[in-house]
Amino acid sequence: MLFIGFYIAITAEAMTAALAAGRRNMDWFGVCLIACVTALGGGTARDILLNHYPLVWVENPYVLLLVCGAALMTIALARIVARLKWPFLLLDALGLVVFTIIGCNIGIESGVHPIIVIVAGMITGIFGGILRDVLCNDIPLVFQGELYATVSIVTGVVYYLGLMAGVPVDLMVIISMAVGFPLRVMALAFKWEMPRFVYDREMRK
Amino acid sequence: MLFIGFYIAITAEAMTAALAAGRRNMDWFGVCLIACVTALGGGTARDILLNHYPLVWVENPYVLLLVCGAALMTIALARIVARLKWPFLLLDALGLVVFTIIGCNIGIESGVHPIIVIVAGMITGIFGGILRDVLCNDIPLVFQGELYATVSIVTGVVYYLGLMAGVPVDLMVIISMAVGFPLRVMALAFKWEMPRFVYDREMRK
Amino acid sequence: MLFIGFYIAITAEAMTAALAAGRRNMDWFGVCLIACVTALGGGTARDILLNHYPLVWVENPYVLLLVCGAALMTIALARIVARLKWPFLLLDALGLVVFTIIGCNIGIESGVHPIIVIVAGMITGIFGGILRDVLCNDIPLVFQGELYATVSIVTGVVYYLGLMAGVPVDLMVIISMAVGFPLRVMALAFKWEMPRFVYDREMRK
Repeated sequence: MLFIGFYIAITAEAMTAALAAGRRNMDWFGVCLIACVTALGGGTARDILLNHYPLVWVENPYVLLLVCGAALMTIALARIVARLKWPFLLLDALGLVVFTIIGCNIGIESGVHPIIVIVAGMITGIFGGILRDVLCNDIPLVFQGELYATVSIVTGVVYYLGLMAGVPVDLMVIISMAVGFPLRVMALAFKWEMPRFVYDREMRK
Repeated sequence: MLFIGFYIAITAEAMTAALAAGRRNMDWFGVCLIACVTALGGGTARDILLNHYPLVWVENPYVLLLVCGAALMTIALARIVARLKWPFLLLDALGLVVFTIIGCNIGIESGVHPIIVIVAGMITGIFGGILRDVLCNDIPLVFQGELYATVSIVTGVVYYLGLMAGVPVDLMVIISMAVGFPLRVMALAFKWEMPRFVYDREMRK
Repeated sequence: MLFIGFYIAITAEAMTAALAAGRRNMDWFGVCLIACVTALGGGTARDILLNHYPLVWVENPYVLLLVCGAALMTIALARIVARLKWPFLLLDALGLVVFTIIGCNIGIESGVHPIIVIVAGMITGIFGGILRDVLCNDIPLVFQGELYATVSIVTGVVYYLGLMAGVPVDLMVIISMAVGFPLRVMALAFKWEMPRFVYDREMRK
């Protein structure tokens, strides 16, 4: 199930990234590259930080073709894709939860401290979007108040605590998704936001 | 020949990067750092992604001195350098092709999948410029329609297919350069461009 | 002493980073992430470039809690913190020197060339601030004329040459701090600046 979820998630990430690149009038190559970075950047960052080689897409390069294919299809179907706002938000929420669980699994495999397991899940879930925003020259969206990283942390904590308590992995995957996915959807529906830190005095070093 | 090409290429990259930094009024240290990142960032990114250590400049730190020297010389000779637009474009085209071939070689050495060999060549060729643009707070140039990454991919594919077909390495280096270099120069001369994906509806997550 | 200095330095870095994030109206999560990247990004970049694993914060995740705690405290105490401009500048100067010495030690341990030892110190000292500025969508401060990287290089050179000359490590730590710290403070007090390279002709590739 995680396996299928992973492919759905990178496809959805690739498509929303392609729209972001289109809004910047990038060329087709730029669209593919932004799609790859967004869909695979989280896992890549996690693996570099944990020294977990080979990287997913180096071992299985067909995911690069899948992501570029999804990005190019988005160019062809931009008018249709743009109307599917809610389906994409749902797929993105699914991706966030699936990526988080996969990241936690890699963390557990690597034998790191529980805090780092949660961090590995969070990096997998959110880092691709941060790289997308840096390459598109935006301040990353994920810092602007949306309940996104928080959902990833909650999902990771539930998943890890469940495993520690002896619940079977398959069941914990379902439970964590059943916690994280509706949490993200409700955050979107009810516009739940993190409090912001607004500070406008100048204290430049 | 690749060896000489490599030194010519990093020197040329360092000098164009220094001009980019000068346009942002950076200080001398910033100029050197942007030059290092542009000239050596592609190879560094490739080696980190393929887990191929030690990095080129860690093993041979004199390339850092060469790059910083070229950058500082550019400051001194800015008026002259700025007039040499076409020589620099040609050196940059040479660098793109040389970097790509070197990157493909590292990929082949590391025993990765053919797709990743091409990707390793492309990352070596274009990633330095992307890092330069991110540090200078621009949307990377390489996404803005120029036939740059495409030249790198074509060069890498020709090189790899030739090697697989049993053509000797030295001959394939010459053949790939004879394909990639004029392709880039013609793209510049005739202003060939990748199609862009222009999309201006709002669909922010 | 380095040990204590390290904790003081990451706390101070976390607090100034939190103020930078607040100036961008980031949410609490963004504030914590910017604080982590600023305080720990230099050491992380150095360890990735030198293939020196596990990373500091992966091995000892409590530093993440310390950094996030310092960032959240800054939100609560923003009014007071903002008045402490000089104490923070002094702590930041201390951090720069301490980070540099720690980075040089890691470089020496890894058995790299002396030039790379100095570079490892410098990356540890300045890279966190560069990442902060990229994520906040600024051109990195460190390229804008302040004597910051230069202080790091001078400190590293003094430290390394001293060790090579056979001076005991503990004494060299004190001597390097006694050189680097006042140098940075004087640079701030007297507004010493690196010369800039101002170049406004267009020569875009």
